[in-house]
Amino acid sequence: MTFEINMRCISCKKQAEIKITQAFCSECFLRHYQRRVEKMIKKFKLIHKNDKVLVAVSGGKDSFSCADVLWQLGFDISVLHIDVGVKQCTSPRTKRVVEKFCKERKIPFYFTSFEEFFEIDDINKFFKVAKRPICATCGMLKRALFNKLARENGFTKIATGHCADDIVKYFFKSMLAGDRDSILWLSKLKPLTPSTHKKIVTRIRPLFEMLEVENLAYTKFRNITVAGCVMCSYFQRKDKWTEILREIDKFIPDWKIKIARTLEKIDIQLREKRKQKEGLKECAICGEITNQEICAICNIKRKI
Amino acid sequence: MTFEINMRCISCKKQAEIKITQAFCSECFLRHYQRRVEKMIKKFKLIHKNDKVLVAVSGGKDSFSCADVLWQLGFDISVLHIDVGVKQCTSPRTKRVVEKFCKERKIPFYFTSFEEFFEIDDINKFFKVAKRPICATCGMLKRALFNKLARENGFTKIATGHCADDIVKYFFKSMLAGDRDSILWLSKLKPLTPSTHKKIVTRIRPLFEMLEVENLAYTKFRNITVAGCVMCSYFQRKDKWTEILREIDKFIPDWKIKIARTLEKIDIQLREKRKQKEGLKECAICGEITNQEICAICNIKRKI
Repeated sequence: MTFEINMRCISCKKQAEIKITQAFCSECFLRHYQRRVEKMIKKFKLIHKNDKVLVAVSGGKDSFSCADVLWQLGFDISVLHIDVGVKQCTSPRTKRVVEKFCKERKIPFYFTSFEEFFEIDDINKFFKVAKRPICATCGMLKRALFNKLARENGFTKIATGHCADDIVKYFFKSMLAGDRDSILWLSKLKPLTPSTHKKIVTRIRPLFEMLEVENLAYTKFRNITVAGCVMCSYFQRKDKWTEILREIDKFIPDWKIKIARTLEKIDIQLREKRKQKEGLKECAICGEITNQEICAICNIKRKI
Repeated sequence: MTFEINMRCISCKKQAEIKITQAFCSECFLRHYQRRVEKMIKKFKLIHKNDKVLVAVSGGKDSFSCADVLWQLGFDISVLHIDVGVKQCTSPRTKRVVEKFCKERKIPFYFTSFEEFFEIDDINKFFKVAKRPICATCGMLKRALFNKLARENGFTKIATGHCADDIVKYFFKSMLAGDRDSILWLSKLKPLTPSTHKKIVTRIRPLFEMLEVENLAYTKFRNITVAGCVMCSYFQRKDKWTEILREIDKFIPDWKIKIARTLEKIDIQLREKRKQKEGLKECAICGEITNQEICAICNIKRKI
């Protein structure tokens, strides 16, 4: 991505301000970005007229782009921000930034924390007892929270800011892991994960084909203050996967978009389907959907 | 890959001679290699007791490894070598090397050329008229030749030396292309492609989980003279894909084996299956299997 370049916007021929895959001035970039998301929503019927959409916003560039573009396109959205209780990932400042974003746009703002929502006394103890990587536990809690809060407040869709970079990273990791759970994940890498039970709210990913750098540029040009966590800031991130993906970027700049598009077109299934689905049940303790007698969250809570 | 290292063989504790994923002396490496291929054959039922296997041998390290290990394991194999008519890829020396390999092992040796087998007057004209990359035309001709020659000579399986490196490269390229044909290819990236018509011979890839460097080491330790083409010599190859795959090697040395193993476990299908299969027909001219009235080869021949 280049922010100052000596090129012309391919659309209006004015001085270009950015080049990711094509050179654009900021105005044309924003219009082009919005049009791509709009097309995606139409193509995969992500949002219907009467849908009430809950957008999960962490305060980072991806989720802010998602919320802002859906708002610009005139959909009925609300924003949910969660205090995840992990020091590096949440701060009162992040909450204020998201709240201000909503106030400016008159978007209803929902806020809660894992501790409050799940009635957990000490979230750090919960993370410890869970005995898995903290990001995995956080992800599990977030998905459960999104779903329950959305359902209980009459939302018909949950939107997240997952973009092509996330999708491709999940895709690779799952292809490498190759276990049953990872392969089930592969089949869910789609712009829309439909509800499979009346208690499960349909999830949509309107930025499925957008690049991370495009979201970054979108928030810059829209003057959106981003308050993402320092841990996973785009430019500071240095994990193995980020490096691998960037190496491939050097050879094929738009490869992540291409892989995301292929994933839209294919179905990936476990070959031996026998035990693939045990059937969904309601957790004996909290009533949420699980494939066990007791869901993972209640199970950890019992151990604390 | 290192050929001289100050390590012990993990199996017999003698001085190791090679380390790809684990350190081995040459003897243990060869035993380990053969055992892995044997396991693969059993797991996917690649070869049955009464199978007559035709191994396609170009003269490179992969196809020689395939033929040699199947011979070592005691299967009923014959070898087919083709003069493809492309200067850089075929030479009388290559033919002599393959013939000698077979004579030493008392393996029946089949030899033909595209021109002779398909009654093409000038193969270079054929390549020109085909109007696609020469490697694509060559691949198409090879597949057709393998199948017809195998069928007409009573072979029940065709074996090729495709290894994990090839599989992963096809996988990536097809995921990036994302068109209908590429997605059909994705579903065929398996150790065994079953026959779907009585005129089509089942194809097997016994080296599906082996790395290219392992095949190279195998031929070295088995003292097999390799006469592969200079164009695609492992160490001289410099195309974009080889570079991309090597970059990932640096982060995860055995990632290609892992992806190959996941591909064994999954089914990949086009989402909209309606037009996926037009049904197989016999070519109105040559009688070979095609999904058109006239097969691609006869079609090009008519245009010469």
